[in-house]
Amino acid sequence: MTDKLRIHRLAHRQVTDRQALHDLLDAGVVAHVGIVRDGEPVVLPVAYARDGDDLLIHGSTGAGLLRAAAAGEPIAVTVTVLDGLVVARSAFDNSMNYRSMMAVGRASALTGEQKLHGLRRVTEHVLPGRWEEVRPTSAKELAATIVLRLPLTEVSVKIRSGGPSDGTDDGEDKQVWAGVVPLRTVAAEPVPGDDVPADVAVPPSVRRSAARWR
Amino acid sequence: MTDKLRIHRLAHRQVTDRQALHDLLDAGVVAHVGIVRDGEPVVLPVAYARDGDDLLIHGSTGAGLLRAAAAGEPIAVTVTVLDGLVVARSAFDNSMNYRSMMAVGRASALTGEQKLHGLRRVTEHVLPGRWEEVRPTSAKELAATIVLRLPLTEVSVKIRSGGPSDGTDDGEDKQVWAGVVPLRTVAAEPVPGDDVPADVAVPPSVRRSAARWR
Repeated sequence: MTDKLRIHRLAHRQVTDRQALHDLLDAGVVAHVGIVRDGEPVVLPVAYARDGDDLLIHGSTGAGLLRAAAAGEPIAVTVTVLDGLVVARSAFDNSMNYRSMMAVGRASALTGEQKLHGLRRVTEHVLPGRWEEVRPTSAKELAATIVLRLPLTEVSVKIRSGGPSDGTDDGEDKQVWAGVVPLRTVAAEPVPGDDVPADVAVPPSVRRSAARWR
Repeated sequence: MTDKLRIHRLAHRQVTDRQALHDLLDAGVVAHVGIVRDGEPVVLPVAYARDGDDLLIHGSTGAGLLRAAAAGEPIAVTVTVLDGLVVARSAFDNSMNYRSMMAVGRASALTGEQKLHGLRRVTEHVLPGRWEEVRPTSAKELAATIVLRLPLTEVSVKIRSGGPSDGTDDGEDKQVWAGVVPLRTVAAEPVPGDDVPADVAVPPSVRRSAARWR
């Protein structure tokens, strides 16, 4: 982590533990990518995956933002997992429990076998085992896909957990309830597409995926 | 919506309906704010609320990003609600069901009564009725708070819903399962803080909040 990315505010919420970074990236589904366009920021949601100590971002060659990122424009990629609402005894002390990381830098566009590998990682981030259940990706499809790799070198992680903190006693009424509303992402039963024959069972990748959010 | 924010790719996923915009903002909890710092993008999660056709963003005066935004630096604010994983018969056609909006522009920092109103809106976005359950916000607390207002004028909305689309027939095996894994945010039972007396019940604001994510 460089000085640039040290978080000065709420330093106790910043975490340098690599495992915590990996865990939150593995728990998230959507990343938000920021890039500068004509001097102004743009932020868009993307699918992603972690590949060791790299972040992979996936998108279409039709997306101008990703083409610019592939050309080496600096990007920021933020993944946030919301764990709960922190309900304090004053509006000011309300907070959220969350895990968030921002990685910044210049990404590189993967090609050839690496690109195929990257597409597989992004697919299996949310559908483990799916790659082997479907037909191979065609050369044409691969040509229409961008997979960016951003090394997780300039990264800041912030984690807030636990109950509310009223800070110093400044008039809170202890008879007022305070606590946490835990939040998490949950999967409902998978819904088959209209053209799936009735005798085709939900495959292992989808069962695994749904089980992750039970 | 200005030309600048027209989405050229996947135009069918872009929505101009104002109600859809309001609905997704009311459904989300965390926004991602992008700003340019030293020519490079930064993206951070924040609490927010919708106030009519304005977006309100809440944070601490200790956050450099929000101070810069309050000073009139252009920002992009993106809210994404994930509704499901779209499982197609090819890795390439996999997608997600989601609702996302990006608003761009220059925000203004609220002051006085408007700032108090803004803090109330942000509080009640996730805890409806909480404002009246707690002591008033102090002048000192208000001074340590930034509430930004960004009018929802330059906005793009993208919504993807429904089942997988295999596109043209390019070799997909119809015996392979395809469909959707619906995802949503769910609240568990509220957890009281350690110092909450046993006879203090979960208040209406927290019950309402938890009921929203049932």
